[in-house]
Amino acid sequence: MKTSEDVWRLLRDQVVPRDVVACPLDQALGRVQRDDVKATEDQPAFDRSAVDGFAVMSGDSSASFRVVGEMRAGDWKPAKLCEGEALRIATGGAIPGPGTEVVMLEDAIEDAGVVRLLRRGSDHIRRRSEDAKTGDVLISTGTVLTDGCIALSASVGYMQPLVTRRLLARHIATGNEIVDPSQIPVPGQIRDANSSLVAAWSVANHLELHQRRVGENAEELRAAMDGVDDLYLISGGASVGRHDFTEQVLRETGFSLLVTKVNARPGKPLIIARRGDQWAFGLPGNPLSHFVCLHVFVAAAVASMHGGAPRPELLQGTVLDDIPGNPRETWWPADIEASGLRPLRWASSGDLTSLARARAILRIPSFGLAAHGAAEFIRTA
Amino acid sequence: MKTSEDVWRLLRDQVVPRDVVACPLDQALGRVQRDDVKATEDQPAFDRSAVDGFAVMSGDSSASFRVVGEMRAGDWKPAKLCEGEALRIATGGAIPGPGTEVVMLEDAIEDAGVVRLLRRGSDHIRRRSEDAKTGDVLISTGTVLTDGCIALSASVGYMQPLVTRRLLARHIATGNEIVDPSQIPVPGQIRDANSSLVAAWSVANHLELHQRRVGENAEELRAAMDGVDDLYLISGGASVGRHDFTEQVLRETGFSLLVTKVNARPGKPLIIARRGDQWAFGLPGNPLSHFVCLHVFVAAAVASMHGGAPRPELLQGTVLDDIPGNPRETWWPADIEASGLRPLRWASSGDLTSLARARAILRIPSFGLAAHGAAEFIRTA
Repeated sequence: MKTSEDVWRLLRDQVVPRDVVACPLDQALGRVQRDDVKATEDQPAFDRSAVDGFAVMSGDSSASFRVVGEMRAGDWKPAKLCEGEALRIATGGAIPGPGTEVVMLEDAIEDAGVVRLLRRGSDHIRRRSEDAKTGDVLISTGTVLTDGCIALSASVGYMQPLVTRRLLARHIATGNEIVDPSQIPVPGQIRDANSSLVAAWSVANHLELHQRRVGENAEELRAAMDGVDDLYLISGGASVGRHDFTEQVLRETGFSLLVTKVNARPGKPLIIARRGDQWAFGLPGNPLSHFVCLHVFVAAAVASMHGGAPRPELLQGTVLDDIPGNPRETWWPADIEASGLRPLRWASSGDLTSLARARAILRIPSFGLAAHGAAEFIRTA
Repeated sequence: MKTSEDVWRLLRDQVVPRDVVACPLDQALGRVQRDDVKATEDQPAFDRSAVDGFAVMSGDSSASFRVVGEMRAGDWKPAKLCEGEALRIATGGAIPGPGTEVVMLEDAIEDAGVVRLLRRGSDHIRRRSEDAKTGDVLISTGTVLTDGCIALSASVGYMQPLVTRRLLARHIATGNEIVDPSQIPVPGQIRDANSSLVAAWSVANHLELHQRRVGENAEELRAAMDGVDDLYLISGGASVGRHDFTEQVLRETGFSLLVTKVNARPGKPLIIARRGDQWAFGLPGNPLSHFVCLHVFVAAAVASMHGGAPRPELLQGTVLDDIPGNPRETWWPADIEASGLRPLRWASSGDLTSLARARAILRIPSFGLAAHGAAEFIRTA
């Protein structure tokens, strides 16, 4: 039976990144950068003032200086300073030439166009190329674009980042017992919460999602698998009783079964299958199992398709309560509190109340976790 | 001079949450819930099987049982079991009646319609209301809606959550030196990276943003302040030289100045002003200062408008390198690595290269931080 690590390795080895497209920078937040963004010129491109202050000649030891002009951030006046002259200069302002020193505003006293300098010595100049040289990599391939990356890209005029094309995903909720969540279920029925979960999860994963519900009917499921999507998610398709049925339909529709069981809790009956570059996941029907399988396993496949990190980012934190061990590795929902990870009440696989506060999933080794000890976790929000 | 804590307190006390609207559940991800979501019925609503297995009468000690029917998750057959009879039952399946016990599939051997039970004793039943009783709060007012919250809401048929109406924000980038980032700046000019930063930051903050650029011209800035937006952001308006100018325009357009300086680095020249329920922030023009001020200060105002937590969520983590102290509290960009927070190279306020990897902002007290010690941080991605 495959472990979580086995599954991540399998996905890393077999899932290929999809084609790249140029994306307008203002729509690129959260997408994965597919090439290196390089500095197109030295940064700074010229010597600039690091402070608001006065520029004078470095060797000029005059007692006071006559303010002969102003260099605002937008100005470019290759003025030459003479002995006894100072130039008012703003942060970012171009330095007139070599042999210049800038004195901070706070270290100067100005009166009627004459300035006295109280402190000298630091030049307060950002030298050309001290942050990056032309050609230096500013943002590496595989980076998930944050607001900071967007700003940095704009600062170098990189306005059409190469990212992965929109991924197509199809979600098929199976089961005779599920009804649209806006309906009132009769006894024995339950509302389909998984479709809402998958839809919300897909937003953060940049999937173009199409959803449908089918009964426990091989023909309907077969028909739903007939597409060109990158990813097929079958909710409820890995529950006992339906597992064989899902496996059979996957085989009939040209998928090879790569995983039919994972040594993890929840998510043991997870199915992973492949048809060329298309991937299918059969997920246990319970929404909490769903939540875990989406974030721990499916997200890794999606990240690989996007050209990002091929396994979930495992962070280290402090767990605030004991969690008992279990022979199987357990992925346990948790909240992120100021001082650490709070495991959420999880009475049974059908108890969804912890989903209200789940912002992380703790990895519980077989021997359990002790309160205030270190733990690995995946962020989910 | 106000501290960061002073600013958060001021915003908490004075910023009022905006009106609520009903929002379709499939568009509610990341919004702040404005009322309590309560259980409309007991959860579970009836006794259900916690496992896949066989239901038998609790007191029935027959050596083997005849399988008389099947209870799938969608079925509701109030079958009565007799001695020596078993019902195949799926996880979530309704329990036929009181006095029933479920035995896990793994603890049973079935052959030709007859089942022998290897282990008894645990009933494997989720009792009515054991997760939540009718009326219990499932999602509290003020919760930021995660994918898990969306799933939980769907499971109880809460399809139109009350959230804050869309917030209107206006961003005005000021400065004679800035040019559209798609243009090639001439010496002395710089690309306007702040507008891209503000736009990306606004997405995560659920702002409906309108942006414009104005020169250093009081009339243009005055005209730009004439609106009904909830929030006005003036980039570059807090730089030395422009600070007084911005303050003056804010006063002329009916704003009261509440903060004109913050004892923090970067962000010292931050301006905060108020006109009725409208808020204006004058931000230092440097993109890294911008990044910090948006996440540390402006985000707190926006969160209050949304009805969420009135200050940024300060998490505790391990800092991986020393950071020197400074008389002023410092907010330092950092990456989140598996084992802790990695402070990013930050040579000067004009060095934007750290924005590529900034996913957090460390809070540096005046005495600095020592490598592998505890530190507070704000997540930015």
